Amino acid sequence: MERSSDYIYATYRIRDGADKLKARAEGIAVGLTVGSWTDLPAAKQESVRQHCGVVDAITVVEPGTGEPGTTLNGATEPGAAADQSTTADGAAGQSAAAQTDTAARTDGPPAATVTADITIGYPAINFTPSFAALLTTVFGKLSMDGVIKLAHLELPASFTDAFPGPKFGVGGIRERLGVYDRPLLMSIFKSCIGNSLDELTAHFTEQALGGADLIKDDEIFFTEAYATPEARVEAYARAAQRAQQETGKQVLYAVNLTGPVFELRDRARRLAALGAGALLLNVYAYGLDVLAELAADPAVSVPILAHPAVSGALYAAPHHGIAADILLGQLLRLAGADVVIYPSPYGSVTLERAVGDRLVNALREPGAQREVLPAPSAGIHPGLVPTLLTDLGTDFIVNAGGGIHGHPDGATAGGRAFLAAIDAAQQSVSLEVAAQDSAPLQRALERWGGAAK
Amino acid sequence: MERSSDYIYATYRIRDGADKLKARAEGIAVGLTVGSWTDLPAAKQESVRQHCGVVDAITVVEPGTGEPGTTLNGATEPGAAADQSTTADGAAGQSAAAQTDTAARTDGPPAATVTADITIGYPAINFTPSFAALLTTVFGKLSMDGVIKLAHLELPASFTDAFPGPKFGVGGIRERLGVYDRPLLMSIFKSCIGNSLDELTAHFTEQALGGADLIKDDEIFFTEAYATPEARVEAYARAAQRAQQETGKQVLYAVNLTGPVFELRDRARRLAALGAGALLLNVYAYGLDVLAELAADPAVSVPILAHPAVSGALYAAPHHGIAADILLGQLLRLAGADVVIYPSPYGSVTLERAVGDRLVNALREPGAQREVLPAPSAGIHPGLVPTLLTDLGTDFIVNAGGGIHGHPDGATAGGRAFLAAIDAAQQSVSLEVAAQDSAPLQRALERWGGAAK
Repeated sequence: MERSSDYIYATYRIRDGADKLKARAEGIAVGLTVGSWTDLPAAKQESVRQHCGVVDAITVVEPGTGEPGTTLNGATEPGAAADQSTTADGAAGQSAAAQTDTAARTDGPPAATVTADITIGYPAINFTPSFAALLTTVFGKLSMDGVIKLAHLELPASFTDAFPGPKFGVGGIRERLGVYDRPLLMSIFKSCIGNSLDELTAHFTEQALGGADLIKDDEIFFTEAYATPEARVEAYARAAQRAQQETGKQVLYAVNLTGPVFELRDRARRLAALGAGALLLNVYAYGLDVLAELAADPAVSVPILAHPAVSGALYAAPHHGIAADILLGQLLRLAGADVVIYPSPYGSVTLERAVGDRLVNALREPGAQREVLPAPSAGIHPGLVPTLLTDLGTDFIVNAGGGIHGHPDGATAGGRAFLAAIDAAQQSVSLEVAAQDSAPLQRALERWGGAAK
Repeated sequence: MERSSDYIYATYRIRDGADKLKARAEGIAVGLTVGSWTDLPAAKQESVRQHCGVVDAITVVEPGTGEPGTTLNGATEPGAAADQSTTADGAAGQSAAAQTDTAARTDGPPAATVTADITIGYPAINFTPSFAALLTTVFGKLSMDGVIKLAHLELPASFTDAFPGPKFGVGGIRERLGVYDRPLLMSIFKSCIGNSLDELTAHFTEQALGGADLIKDDEIFFTEAYATPEARVEAYARAAQRAQQETGKQVLYAVNLTGPVFELRDRARRLAALGAGALLLNVYAYGLDVLAELAADPAVSVPILAHPAVSGALYAAPHHGIAADILLGQLLRLAGADVVIYPSPYGSVTLERAVGDRLVNALREPGAQREVLPAPSAGIHPGLVPTLLTDLGTDFIVNAGGGIHGHPDGATAGGRAFLAAIDAAQQSVSLEVAAQDSAPLQRALERWGGAAK
């Protein structure tokens, strides 16, 4: 069916009785918008109609007694959708959704339990432009309502236009670095906590001499006991300049943005002014609106790297929570991440391949917000680089920690091995052949082998 | 074993090969603290020892080849724990935890998969006093690492002392209301979106005349198209005074705190100054640190009600995410919620009974932070009140929406029915007997019946 640009459409994958789906969907559409419908006077129904949710589709995807792919009902007009919630509307309970459930479960004999996708349209005018409003409405109470996963979100321009999105994106980060024609290399500090500023700066220099384009803090680096973020930014900026004299390459330091939430904006502005190359943000520890407001702030004049910490608590379960491609793809781009770090499909901490593909697609598909650089992470070593290029093309970040620091000859050689691998893969030269001209790559291949099996 | 007050202990329930547990635990202890251990010079090991995590316990709870309840190893000293991570430490991968996993999976023949609880001690000095630091460290990368649920958190005073917790708590809210000897009654607006300020105020008055102690906004009420939060606070304050002339009772209006995240503090202060009775906050949509910083702010001089919206995305899955009693009990109290709304065990949106009990216990057990009022919600009607009192005693909130608005004689009668039920239950008078003197209660019982089956 054709969808209206006046609605935010959310699709939920649920398990419920085949005979409960319609009433449940209608309960959601009313309960999470105007609250009640059938007991409203006709004149009031007319005035609140534009705020009332609609049932867009109910599709059985795994049948009990139902048939797979059967669309039980299509679009309904506001009010029409709500007409069926009569039995639920007066029941005791906090939410109409819950009420429907209660009511339905006491009606008649039990029907087979099925897996179904329910799509609800929520009027966009009900929302203020914030992720809190979005999440509270489309997956607030519902998140607690049994076996239910938020599987798909369709956001109209009337909602998304309020978000400028990434301030730099793919093009902006390439301009900052002056690198246009190859994947970028990001090196992750192996160890941050417990190191002095001098030790950290030495680690930074080792990595910078290897030729990394970006060097990022460990995301768990919160303590400032030995080195404040401000001190790191200043010390690393000097180290980066010295390294550049040797490598001829710029390097951006991504500093972990930490501290009290209401001070993050000031701190982000200050770190940017001090010369930070980028900010690293634990978005799902602090909140999507924090990212969105930092990204929209002109004084936060550096790219923002979104770390996926904590997001697995939301996406990793098969039948609960929010799909990973929504969380780490669609919403991070809308909120303004310039780079999205996510679990690569190559290491041991992985996403299902199809989910990873949808995630990357969400970062890149044509849209009002700039394109985002994907940074698949965990388990990346030089031998994987040809696979990465095949899978992701040119506009992505090779992000490595152990694959750099674990190099037999140290982190500088580790970075060089990656750059040699990137160069070879772009020229369709096998790594084994390229390794004949690159001792670091040769040693890396000896350590970790070639491409993923 | 005796635990040290220098550590934050996190217990994870995982599924993994019986022979992988030790290496995995040790990989976590090192990888999520100092990053590496075995390749450090001895002098450096000494200096970072206080920052290195420890493996506190590994217990098989559901055996494959292991035995149930077997503790595979007990406490280890820092360094001792880390000694085993040698095989993992040099492997490519972003986190030591992931590295261990990878390394372990290539060692020898596969062992039986077991369910196990792993407890890791993280040095408290690694953390700054923020929920972002806490969650990023104890369940950041780990949240993405396969079948894993954060089941238990033990927070030492060195961490929790930084949080003042609830500003009012049970005692403070009772003082505000002058009600000391019975459960409180909270009424939820049935419908907010799409109503004019006059309509909303009329709804408020209806509820206030019923005798509710608190009246709260719908948590999905974000739009300000018809009535800003400020306008509501002022209009309802006047309505509350008028109602008080009739009922003799005070009523607190809990206004939904909405808007851009970096403006929430100013808005909270302003609403408090304007006369709001309390603030309603969608904590898991905005972030725990937002709650913590509002609760710690003297100018936010009103109680804060934590709504559980979105939290189900984190807790509802059986084998992933974070336990509900941690999220809605322990952490909300630490962050400073004065009231915690959570899914009641009585309605259709429910928590497992044991989880609900742990949640309530976390809100009430002796501790440095004030006790919190639990508000079990969804599916509450007057017939359930005796069960609620039996289960929760006196210090809780009877929170109802449909159970008030669905009353055959309207919301005012709905509130009165609840108060009559509370009064009866406290005197151990059956609702049926009490209903002889309370027409509202009689009608409620006709509608919804008595106690839960």
